Formats: sequence, structure tokens, C-alpha cells
Amino acid sequence: MTHAGTRSWWGWGTVEHAVRGAERTALTGRVAGLLPDADLTVHLPPDVASLALSPVRVTAPRSLAHLCSATPYDRAAHTHGKAFRDVVRNLHGDLRHAPDLVARPRTEQDVADLLDWCTREGIAVIPFGGGSSVVGGVEPRLADGCPALTLDTGHLDRVLEVDPVSRSARIQAGVLGPHLEDQLRPSGLTLRHFPQSFEYSTLGGWLATRAGGHYATLYTHIDDLTQALRVVTPSGTGESRRLPASGAGPSPDRMFLGSEGTLGVITEAWMRLQRRPRWRANASVHFADFTAAVAATRALAQSGLHPSNCRLLDPAEALVNAGVTTGGSVLILAFESADHPLGPWMDRALELCRDHGGHLPAPARHTHTGADGADEAGGGAGADRSWRSSFLRMPYQRDALAQQSLVVETFETACTWDRFEELHAAVTHAANEAIRTVCGTGVVTCRFTHVHPDGPAPYFGIYAAGRWGSTVAQWDDIKAAVCQAIADHGGTITHHHAVGRDHRPWYDTQRPGPFAAALTAAKSALDPAGILNPGVLLPAG
Amino acid sequence: MTHAGTRSWWGWGTVEHAVRGAERTALTGRVAGLLPDADLTVHLPPDVASLALSPVRVTAPRSLAHLCSATPYDRAAHTHGKAFRDVVRNLHGDLRHAPDLVARPRTEQDVADLLDWCTREGIAVIPFGGGSSVVGGVEPRLADGCPALTLDTGHLDRVLEVDPVSRSARIQAGVLGPHLEDQLRPSGLTLRHFPQSFEYSTLGGWLATRAGGHYATLYTHIDDLTQALRVVTPSGTGESRRLPASGAGPSPDRMFLGSEGTLGVITEAWMRLQRRPRWRANASVHFADFTAAVAATRALAQSGLHPSNCRLLDPAEALVNAGVTTGGSVLILAFESADHPLGPWMDRALELCRDHGGHLPAPARHTHTGADGADEAGGGAGADRSWRSSFLRMPYQRDALAQQSLVVETFETACTWDRFEELHAAVTHAANEAIRTVCGTGVVTCRFTHVHPDGPAPYFGIYAAGRWGSTVAQWDDIKAAVCQAIADHGGTITHHHAVGRDHRPWYDTQRPGPFAAALTAAKSALDPAGILNPGVLLPAG
Repeated sequence: MTHAGTRSWWGWGTVEHAVRGAERTALTGRVAGLLPDADLTVHLPPDVASLALSPVRVTAPRSLAHLCSATPYDRAAHTHGKAFRDVVRNLHGDLRHAPDLVARPRTEQDVADLLDWCTREGIAVIPFGGGSSVVGGVEPRLADGCPALTLDTGHLDRVLEVDPVSRSARIQAGVLGPHLEDQLRPSGLTLRHFPQSFEYSTLGGWLATRAGGHYATLYTHIDDLTQALRVVTPSGTGESRRLPASGAGPSPDRMFLGSEGTLGVITEAWMRLQRRPRWRANASVHFADFTAAVAATRALAQSGLHPSNCRLLDPAEALVNAGVTTGGSVLILAFESADHPLGPWMDRALELCRDHGGHLPAPARHTHTGADGADEAGGGAGADRSWRSSFLRMPYQRDALAQQSLVVETFETACTWDRFEELHAAVTHAANEAIRTVCGTGVVTCRFTHVHPDGPAPYFGIYAAGRWGSTVAQWDDIKAAVCQAIADHGGTITHHHAVGRDHRPWYDTQRPGPFAAALTAAKSALDPAGILNPGVLLPAG
Repeated sequence: MTHAGTRSWWGWGTVEHAVRGAERTALTGRVAGLLPDADLTVHLPPDVASLALSPVRVTAPRSLAHLCSATPYDRAAHTHGKAFRDVVRNLHGDLRHAPDLVARPRTEQDVADLLDWCTREGIAVIPFGGGSSVVGGVEPRLADGCPALTLDTGHLDRVLEVDPVSRSARIQAGVLGPHLEDQLRPSGLTLRHFPQSFEYSTLGGWLATRAGGHYATLYTHIDDLTQALRVVTPSGTGESRRLPASGAGPSPDRMFLGSEGTLGVITEAWMRLQRRPRWRANASVHFADFTAAVAATRALAQSGLHPSNCRLLDPAEALVNAGVTTGGSVLILAFESADHPLGPWMDRALELCRDHGGHLPAPARHTHTGADGADEAGGGAGADRSWRSSFLRMPYQRDALAQQSLVVETFETACTWDRFEELHAAVTHAANEAIRTVCGTGVVTCRFTHVHPDGPAPYFGIYAAGRWGSTVAQWDDIKAAVCQAIADHGGTITHHHAVGRDHRPWYDTQRPGPFAAALTAAKSALDPAGILNPGVLLPAG
């Protein structure tokens, strides 16, 4: 949960936590077992000083110059997000879309002043939180000649106010996950929003992209934890009223949740918090049959029991990421509460699992009083603990594999339960076909990250042997095939990874026409010069 | 739960169910006890044939004429919603804002054709579901000379498709509550959205106004039960994809939820359903102290137990509407489930209540297997049953009292828990002061209709003696005082009654400026002629 260290300009997290030594050896060994023909030579990133960055085309006015940086490190570290294709382009030194400047506002007025200046000068503004986008959401991929300023909110990182009665806090948007939780800890409260990117993503980024978090059911998205927003737009600043719920017109907050920096810069939010859990119950349920495991998961999602974790791993996922060698599926199940012991909840959940052929490999591990503190990454034992610790290392390992010419990435969606079997088959087929065509051999895995009463959020992983120098193109071909299969079979182009620039073709067909017209009009009203994140969600003006 | 009978043109529900005989006598007696100085003469509604309706200013083209009516009954019954001020104006024969025509489309194409014609001719279109608005949402209160067509969706009343796997159904928007549940019953599924207006309001109305329903916690609003929407706008028809959740841009559905007929006409929706409950647990918990009762309710709202009912009645509400004469507060508490018995849930809830001084007047009535069918209005015993049956009669009794010169109406809001005590005091004070000034004496009651982890939805009732001929003006003065108190103390101008025309002044100050600009722009894009419900949410163009 720490983020101490030197941030990597090219890959995930810190330089100090990158995969090396014994972990690299073990990882390479595992991959060699799965993909025996792969060339696993490790390619090192270029030195920042050696990068051929384009000349800077704009100069900040004196009043804003102290907020702006044009150092090669800052420009390089803000050129891409953290998708596979971003990391690989970094490894190749391809930073053709580097921003001209990186600005770090210290106050909301700084944000407004920066937007004013950029509006006057026609400079594109790319709002940037932790930079963990995997969809091209923070990449200044603009029309030729358009200068770009990346607006890094990292200095707006304080919890400003805590209301323990309503269990809420007013929080600046640029705070990273661990620093946010550190500031809440003395109050005994927690946001409990733990996406995989937790350590290197911000509240503002979660809000702007409708991030999915810790809870596998119920409060799956950050949307539901949002009480009020404060947003700076080129046309003015606005703040919604703190309310537990309202029926006064269409929700103002829901227009900015998911706006991905195209309508304004979220500077603060009142967020709904939880008391830190005191009771937990964990279990890993094994299923011989994936279809039966899906049915059990659906029964749980529709039971009203609201497990905090309900993540189904298919056999490949269980093998690759949880070390389960039975060839079956594993359902990682957990309940947590600050109010009451969870025996009856877990008992009923396990009963539902047994009804569908699930079994516990060992006596059920049940309710226990949880330790406070570093619980975010912990909890459980066996397959669930193993999977969780693997979960936090995944982005680092993805980078390590990218260095070794693998094509390795994830894609995610959601669909209604009635369509899942068909969608799963179609996506798996499309991925395997694309892998076969462009890579030769590979592995496709699937897990559910979240489950809703009316449908799951399947999350697919692929691991394939690529050719150094071609892995971005190889990935793009696989990605396109998969996205088309998702769109053709009733899935959303994203459940919680956002649209950015990379998902645009499929988003454009998914989005209803009248809403596209309304969003375009709203954008014109709030950002008349079209400077905010051009090309994300909507065509660049 | 039946809606058989002759719809009243001037008041709630059917003519046959209006208050009469012994119920009228008892009601009059109760009111005379509370307000001894009131003149309780009963004023009868005028005959429809005697109403002086304005001349009809438009003629439908031949292709649409068969959908349109200009009969005095249809025009009169579509002039107002069902607010106190609507009913009183009807009683006085004040129908100056009657629509010129009432159209009843039979297909979605009819809706589109009607919008096309009205756009060409500059005729205002007032979308109309069950007509139960209490905020002037369906009243053609327009600039002089602007003709109006009320678009009554009543013929679009079918459940078109049920997906039992995902527990969802595709439903036409014009269906009334009971007819909707009747059509779902064979599938064993239920929407379980039971607002007080259930019998005489429609799915489309619920969606367009973000209605609050049956569940006191968790799925409080229809928003959360919405899987996808189909909307006809003057600029085209759109449909969102059926999805359990999505992170693809701002939610398209959330822009139309709460749009109150200003952006388009919702014609169909895919709704999330529940299995019909098999287990229920009910209890009425009594508290001597209202502040302690509020604290207990907050503890329940934050417990993660998710009671289906959690309605706190203050002493006046408990006395007036549940016959509780102890002078204390009553918390009506219930759990329901289709999946599991609820003993542990209710046990922990009662423990929380006892921690705050709550006690059960009789041995707790616990889990029982519920009968299917007419459960919507039933369940429980004692104060809760008494309160529930009273709940369904309230609109009829409100009309009866309006006939007897009472000023009687409700207003509702929501606020965070930290502000509740102050808001409650301020609203109660403002209401009492206004009653004293304009009416002399009266009663103010408060209950919570819904509770959220971060705040309650308080619902106030007032009962005051008015002067026949002045009760609308008296009500308007009281209403304005209360709304201002709500706005001044951090409440929303509406938790689930919508904005309409009557809440506009306070909505305009509550809504953030950038969102107002975005909504105005969206409206212009979808409804360039500004024909859709002018004056609702936004100033008439």
C-alpha cells in the first residue's frame, strides 16, 4: 500500500517495485511453460535523456509559469497512460504525442486560470490524475499542430473536512488512493474504493471515469459513493449540494461522472464513507463446471446478501493468477461489516454455492474480527489471499512481460445474465482467433470483477507471444476483434475502464443518438473552445 | 390495489372510492378535535358540463385526429395534477390552463408524429402519465396564446418482454402500477415500486420524475431499477443498451431520468425486477424521545442491514396517521427477502433500536412466510398495518379535507444527517409561523419516507384551517415559507416529488450553474422548438 519510491516514467508504479531478480526468473519460467515458443529477451526502457521529444510550442504567461514544467521527465511521464500499448511505446521511445507543458495547479483558482489561458490560446488541456488510464484517456493524441498542456492535479491532495455523523468527507480530487485513506484513518472511516490502480490513481480520476472498486456487489462504482461534486469548467465553476439523494431534475453529478475530462476539471468531491470493517468472512468455493459456477454466482448476485467480494475465476484464470491446478473454477467470496458478525450471511451464501455443485476445498474459514490498517490488500487465505497478492502485482508483471515481447492485456465489459454464455463464447473465440492469426499461440482467461443482480462484469485477460517491434500492432488487432465481439453480443464497451480515445469507435455505436446530441451540446456550452481532452468521448471539435 | 371505477376529473382516484358516509363523518370528527375553530362545510365539485373552458385553438391534421380529444371531461381531467392547489382549483372550477387537445398515442410512431406536428405548429406538448404530479408538472401553465396538447401515454400499457434469467422486463411507459404488477405476476417477478400514487401513476411518470418507491433503503428511487430507456425526442428516437452497469461516458439514462418531459417522451424501459418476497419480518419500535429515534434510524441506515421499510413517524405523525397515543415516535421496520429467512437481520436491527432506547410495545412479530399477491398494501400488524392502510387512503382524505376548507398538504426533502436537526427545527418553525400568519392554527407532522446512509428524507405534513376561496393562496404562502427554509438549511427542494413548475424558484438556486448551462444546451439540441413541457425545470424558451 505504499507509494514511496521513484515513479517510473515508462511503466507502472515505482522503479523500486518493478519486477526483478527472483520474481523475474519465476515469471519467465511460468510464461515459458505456457508459451514455449516465446522469445523472452528482456528489453530495457530508454533513458529519458535520450528521448527525442518534439519542441515545446507554447510559453506560459508569467502568472502561470511557476505551475508549469517542460522537463523531458515530466513530458515523458505524462505522454501516455498505462495501457499495454502505452508501456510498449514508451519502451520503444515513441513519445510523439508528448504534451508541450505539464501544469500542476496548487489551488482551484490556478485551475480556472489555466483553463482561461488555454481557452484564449487554443491549447488543448488534458486533465491528469494518477495517469493510470488504459484507454488513451490522458494521451494528447491531437490534430497536427495543436499544442497541449497536461493538467496534473497531484498537488490538490487533501482531505478538507470529515463529517462523522453523515459519514462523508470533502476531498480534493488529486489525492492518490493510499494518501486518501491515510488522511481518513484517524476518523475510523474509509472510502473503501480499491481499484487495481489504487496506489497510482486519484479520486478525480475515479470520478471522471466512473471507476469500479472494491465492492463486487452493490456499491460497485464510485458513482454510488458520490455525494456532491465541485467542477471547474471554461464557462465557470459549479458545486452540487451535499445530499444523500435528490429527485430535483436529472442528476447534475451524473453528467460529470464519466465525463473523462471533456466537460470540466473535478476539483473536489464530498464522498460517502464507511466505518472500517470489524467483521469479515471469507471463503473460496471450487466448482468443477464453469457453467454451474456462473449459475451459483448469479444466485448470489440475486440473493440480496450483498457479498463484498464475489469474484469468479474461470479455470485458466484460477491457474494463472491463483495457482489452482484442479482445472476447475474458483469463486472468491467475502462479506464484511462494521456492524455485525456475518455467519448467517456466509452460511446462506455457501448453501447457494452447494446447490450449484460448489465445494470448499478445506473447512470454511468464517467470521473473524479483522485487524485494522492494511486490510485493503489482505484478508482471507488460500486461493483468495494468493489471488489478492497477485492482483496488486499484476500491473508490474504486465510491464515485465511487455518487456519480453509478450502481448498481455485485459479487457472488460458487462452484459445481462441471459447474454453472458453467448458473449463469453464469442469473445473467447474472437480473442483466440485473433491471437492465432497475429501471434500464433496464447492463453485467454476470464474472471468476474463485479456482479450485479441483472448481469456480471466479465474481465478477460490474454497472454500471447509477440514479436518485438510489432506487439502494439498485434495488440491492436486483438483488441479490435474483441471489442467488436463485445459490441456484437450486447456488452458495454467498458464496465469501469472508461472510453478514452481507444474505445471511441465502439462507444460511438453504443451511445444512443439523442444522448450524443445532448452531450455534444453540453460540451459546447461548457467548453466553447473545445480545449478539454479533445477526441475523448466525442470527436475533436 | 384496484383501479376499477370512474376516474375523478377533479380529485384523486375514482369517484367510487372518494371519502363519504361514515369515513367522512369520522374524518370530520378527528379534524374538529384537532382544529376546533375550522369551518368544515363540504364544498362539492362543479359538474364538468358547467365548466367555462377556453375555446380550442388548434385542429389536429387528419392523420392524427383519431388520437385526439377535445371533450370537456378530457380537457378538465388533464388540466392539473393532484396537488392540493390543483384539487382546490378544480373545486372552484378554475381551469384556465386547460389543454386544447388531449392526445392518446397508440404506438411509438404516433408519439413521434405528434411531436413532429407540434414542432411544426409551435404547440406545447405536455407528457402525461397518470397525472399524479403535485408540482405543476402536467399543467399547461404557458405564456398567453401558446396552444397546448397533452400527450397521455395511457394506451402504451403493455409488458412486452420478460427476461427471467436477468430478472428484467421491457415495459411500455404508460402502464399504471397495478396493471404493471398484474402483467408481471405470472413470471413470479415484481418491480416492487410502490409510491403512494401507485394506483394512479405510470412507469413513465416514475422515470421522468425520479420517483421514490417501496424500499426505504437501498433501491429507494426508480433510477436504480432502470436498466435501459427508449425515448422519443423531437430530434429523433434513441434507446440505451440493456446493461447491468456501464462506465461508458456519462450515463445516458441518467439524463432522461428526472427530465420531467422536457427532453423527450419515454416510451419504453427495461426495468430490473425482484422475485416476489417469501420471507418478511415486521416490527414497530416505540421511542419516547424523537432525537433518540432519529439516532436509531441513522444507525440502521448505516448498518448495512438494508431494511425494506424504515419509516420513522414523529409523535404528531404517529398520532394523526397511525393512531399512536403515547406521545412518542414510532419506527416502522421491515425486512423482506425471496431468498432467506430474516431472523438475524431483524434481531440485529432491534438490538440497534434498543441501544437507542427503543422498545417493542408487544412481543416482536418476526419472520413469516408471506402470502403472495396483494402484499403491496399489507404486511405487519398494529401501528405499521394501521399506518399502511391509512397511507393508501391519504390522497382521498386529503381531497375530502380540501373540500372542507382545510389547507392540507405534504412537502418533502432530503439532507445529510449532520443537518437534520437544524433543518427539522427550521422547517417546523417556518411552517408553524406561516400557518399562524395565514391560517391561525394548524398541525405540522414529520416522518422519514426513506433513509440513506448519509441522510434521511423527511416528509412533512400540514393540516390547517383555511378560508373557503383563499386556501390556494394560503397554501402558496405556507409552501413558499417552507421551501425557503428547506433551501436555506441544506435540503433538496425535492427528494422524490419532482420540480415541475412549482419548485422552480428553489430548484434554480440549487442547481449548479454549469449544469444549468449544459441542460439548457441539451434541451435546445433535442427540442429545438422548445415545445416539450415549457416552464418545467427550465424557463420556457
